[in-house]
Amino acid sequence: GRTLDLGGIFPPLATPFSPMQEVDYGRLEGNVHRYGSIPFRGLVVLGSNGEYPYLAPQERLEVVSCVRRALPRDRLLLAGSGCESTQATIQMTLSMAEAGADVALVVTPCYYRGAMTSAALVQHYTEVADASPIPVVLYSVPANTGMDLPLEAVVTLAQHPNILGIKDSGGDITRIGLMIHKTQQEDFQVLAGSAGFLLASYALGASGGICALANVLGAPLCQLHRLCHEGHWQEARELQHRLIEPNTAVTRRFGIPGLKKVMEWFGYYGGPCRTPLAPLSPPQVEELRGAFSSNGWL
Amino acid sequence: GRTLDLGGIFPPLATPFSPMQEVDYGRLEGNVHRYGSIPFRGLVVLGSNGEYPYLAPQERLEVVSCVRRALPRDRLLLAGSGCESTQATIQMTLSMAEAGADVALVVTPCYYRGAMTSAALVQHYTEVADASPIPVVLYSVPANTGMDLPLEAVVTLAQHPNILGIKDSGGDITRIGLMIHKTQQEDFQVLAGSAGFLLASYALGASGGICALANVLGAPLCQLHRLCHEGHWQEARELQHRLIEPNTAVTRRFGIPGLKKVMEWFGYYGGPCRTPLAPLSPPQVEELRGAFSSNGWL
Amino acid sequence: GRTLDLGGIFPPLATPFSPMQEVDYGRLEGNVHRYGSIPFRGLVVLGSNGEYPYLAPQERLEVVSCVRRALPRDRLLLAGSGCESTQATIQMTLSMAEAGADVALVVTPCYYRGAMTSAALVQHYTEVADASPIPVVLYSVPANTGMDLPLEAVVTLAQHPNILGIKDSGGDITRIGLMIHKTQQEDFQVLAGSAGFLLASYALGASGGICALANVLGAPLCQLHRLCHEGHWQEARELQHRLIEPNTAVTRRFGIPGLKKVMEWFGYYGGPCRTPLAPLSPPQVEELRGAFSSNGWL
Amino acid sequence: GRTLDLGGIFPPLATPFSPMQEVDYGRLEGNVHRYGSIPFRGLVVLGSNGEYPYLAPQERLEVVSCVRRALPRDRLLLAGSGCESTQATIQMTLSMAEAGADVALVVTPCYYRGAMTSAALVQHYTEVADASPIPVVLYSVPANTGMDLPLEAVVTLAQHPNILGIKDSGGDITRIGLMIHKTQQEDFQVLAGSAGFLLASYALGASGGICALANVLGAPLCQLHRLCHEGHWQEARELQHRLIEPNTAVTRRFGIPGLKKVMEWFGYYGGPCRTPLAPLSPPQVEELRGAFSSNGWL
Repeated sequence: GRTLDLGGIFPPLATPFSPMQEVDYGRLEGNVHRYGSIPFRGLVVLGSNGEYPYLAPQERLEVVSCVRRALPRDRLLLAGSGCESTQATIQMTLSMAEAGADVALVVTPCYYRGAMTSAALVQHYTEVADASPIPVVLYSVPANTGMDLPLEAVVTLAQHPNILGIKDSGGDITRIGLMIHKTQQEDFQVLAGSAGFLLASYALGASGGICALANVLGAPLCQLHRLCHEGHWQEARELQHRLIEPNTAVTRRFGIPGLKKVMEWFGYYGGPCRTPLAPLSPPQVEELRGAFSSNGWL
Repeated sequence: GRTLDLGGIFPPLATPFSPMQEVDYGRLEGNVHRYGSIPFRGLVVLGSNGEYPYLAPQERLEVVSCVRRALPRDRLLLAGSGCESTQATIQMTLSMAEAGADVALVVTPCYYRGAMTSAALVQHYTEVADASPIPVVLYSVPANTGMDLPLEAVVTLAQHPNILGIKDSGGDITRIGLMIHKTQQEDFQVLAGSAGFLLASYALGASGGICALANVLGAPLCQLHRLCHEGHWQEARELQHRLIEPNTAVTRRFGIPGLKKVMEWFGYYGGPCRTPLAPLSPPQVEELRGAFSSNGWL
Repeated sequence: GRTLDLGGIFPPLATPFSPMQEVDYGRLEGNVHRYGSIPFRGLVVLGSNGEYPYLAPQERLEVVSCVRRALPRDRLLLAGSGCESTQATIQMTLSMAEAGADVALVVTPCYYRGAMTSAALVQHYTEVADASPIPVVLYSVPANTGMDLPLEAVVTLAQHPNILGIKDSGGDITRIGLMIHKTQQEDFQVLAGSAGFLLASYALGASGGICALANVLGAPLCQLHRLCHEGHWQEARELQHRLIEPNTAVTRRFGIPGLKKVMEWFGYYGGPCRTPLAPLSPPQVEELRGAFSSNGWL
Repeated sequence: GRTLDLGGIFPPLATPFSPMQEVDYGRLEGNVHRYGSIPFRGLVVLGSNGEYPYLAPQERLEVVSCVRRALPRDRLLLAGSGCESTQATIQMTLSMAEAGADVALVVTPCYYRGAMTSAALVQHYTEVADASPIPVVLYSVPANTGMDLPLEAVVTLAQHPNILGIKDSGGDITRIGLMIHKTQQEDFQVLAGSAGFLLASYALGASGGICALANVLGAPLCQLHRLCHEGHWQEARELQHRLIEPNTAVTRRFGIPGLKKVMEWFGYYGGPCRTPLAPLSPPQVEELRGAFSSNGWL
């Protein structure tokens, strides 16, 4: 049954690399331990923030295993298992389940976006969800994929017993509201894919959020979840306002190189990205810092 | 001073045309009278829904005069006075003030959108607001203009003593939240430009809404305003959910021809649009009806 | 019959303004006289480069009259008569014909671009062409209007006896080629709307060009026309190569303020634009100059 | 030195799959043999048409080996070696060179397109070209990647001794002309990435084309190359006109499933695509057929 509760905040972990751009599993474990003190519902590995397109299949599996070992059992582990082809996605999902993932987060295939019709995507996700031993969460992230998972596809897929919900990173709150409205018979859980529209998503009925910003401001985001959950909308609003600029800075504006830089300021390991993602220039670092300091976070 | 309170709902009136596509001032007056029983904060004439680009300057002024005469003094009259050039916008704003408008709603000039930099737009609005005897509300409607009024321009313009607020029809709730946050020292009022993201906008701190849908579902939208204002977010959410599909149907999906068709179902005069806006086909009318009936409004 | 030959180059004239932003008809006449020495097929007034959205209807007509008086009878006068509504477009077309225009250039209405279906546009242009005493040329300029005139609409409209051709400023050469191919039974004339893709358009079978750059480099553009016409493709290519950067500089990059600045360098009257179009900054002027000097034009 | 001549037509091979979606190397070899009678300059494997994102690394290498064995030595073998990370791209390029590729075709990494600045891309390609034992051809395909390789990056990279040229599939002929103009000191070869703008590209100075349509209309495309090369522009134009609709049908309109269907009509093995690419519906097949038959190819 669809009983797994996704309500809460999940950081989509950055993947730590050594100076030679090798995955640094020790640093990864260290970050996971540090996140242990924050009341997250769980962690996400190998989402867009995890640089998953830059990891070999074997590396993706080892990241899952590593985090599973470091994570207390009461925390959920969502793992990004999406690949471009259906068969590769199924294979990766099976392997990640074996490696300890609780839920598979499956991004829309996108290279042939002109051919990714609603019907093609429904077929893709249905085959993956049918084959998967663990529940599936849909993942729509148009900033990276250049396409949205169409609403009608979401509504159809919400009826699948092994599809739990969606991470929607597009931020179109009208779409999010309608998605919740059209799936309310299905116990389908909608997760905001970014902290910029988190409060608005809660106001429309979302269950939680998978937010890059939670890598660095996890506690305030969990507080925002709680405030919305308990109906303290005025306080929630004030908190949300202060989170928008920091969020934009570590997503649209400066991306993962920005996020990893801020992680170092907050006591986590950040380190380099794999190329072609490039480190920030000093003026960019200054602007990044200003987005946090001017809102009282640094 | 900036003391005029825009808090509440405004319908952006459709402009009634006779079968020969002449402005039908009698029908317009009739509609205004019918809206008298709904607790709107005021009315908007000659927004995008008013087919303003299809009206001659003299017609635009007569619409303002006509509605001013029909409207009780305690209701605000906002009039769309934007033109492509700064000098034409100033002239139109002066004339509309004389014709009885309380506030000028000024859309971004857009034909040369590649040249409409933040600096050019700040200059444009500053000259208009300096010259205008009535307060100015900015108006950003990317679906029609193909451009956003940049956030940095909004923040700068919010400091102008004769600029009251903005109607934002883009629906990017992250932008709306940040706009409210960055202008909170300025007593700047943000109005949601569409019913699709009205609750979300209130949740972030908006003052009200100018919503096409208010031409036909004015009472429920005023109720949504009240529920949000009084903190009944759960009830508000249920109401908001039922408004999204009808709203999309009379805006993005079927536009003004759709809106005018629905007006007839709700007892208002709708009538034809000026060409090249074309009437709906019978299957489109069926789909339109479904958007209202499936949500309990018909 | 469709016997009017549009083969050749037309400059879409800039509209000169005085320092107070009034139309300067004397300067306009002066520029027309200077263009008399260049073998243009004719002139265009009140295209996008003519700042037509910034002119009042009466000003538009006076510009037509003024240029007609200054222009030898053997040169064609095309006048931009497009408005947003069908009825206003018809009225403007009739008046411009009376004022001496030989051909009406009719831009796609665009404010309600979501509703401008192929059927709506075919209806619009058919009504205009039916009513017009002078031939009509379609005008598609997506950089300004945010939309293309759909190919299927062009193919349908090409059959209208009073529609001569199209000015296509989009620059999609695949579309231009197909347009020529699908209308070759119709004696339909395709004009390149920009000098950037002029040679390519000739290679596919275009008749000529209406090019902003012809306001300043009219002679080389007429030479390019001749070279292509006579089959000197290698020389044509070398010339075309040197025209791309100057063309981009006075269109996409710096727009009409850039074009007017360059006009002064080449002995024409440029002068200010109407606001909100803003003058270039000194570094922009330097970059503009470089686009011409590095290609041997200054 | 940069002496390898890319002048001519290359089909970007489709990758044949069995009904169970396994790579069918026998069918691949069969197709290669059939292409032997057409005067192609060479073949491309694992471009976008080769469904490369759906193949495992090992499969990609085996496709290269298989085609190398089947291909006469005087035909060039270009192999798509692009991956998202720089290190994976280098590794794949080295392996493909070992497997027999003559040239590496390297698509822009694109998942983090917001971070793929000109500087980041120059760095990426420079590292790849430095490390590669075979020459590199840049590959920009915005329909799939959602981004263009910026012109300034192309101009910089054209100076690298191991970068031969670019396959440009965007079809912006102004950009293509400028690219050729700005790199003419560098002996940099520009290949049109689609048959829709092939003649136009030759007219501007391109060296050849890598065109999906060459999988089915290889002989006419080689004839078009020859006609342009020998200056028979009028005949070339007539041929080009008849190729646009078929080309659109097997690219933008129906993609690889369309291309594979047409391959069967022309005597090649087409077969299924890997999912989520879906087969055409019968009405789509009819439309596809019409694009070829109405232009005299069936």
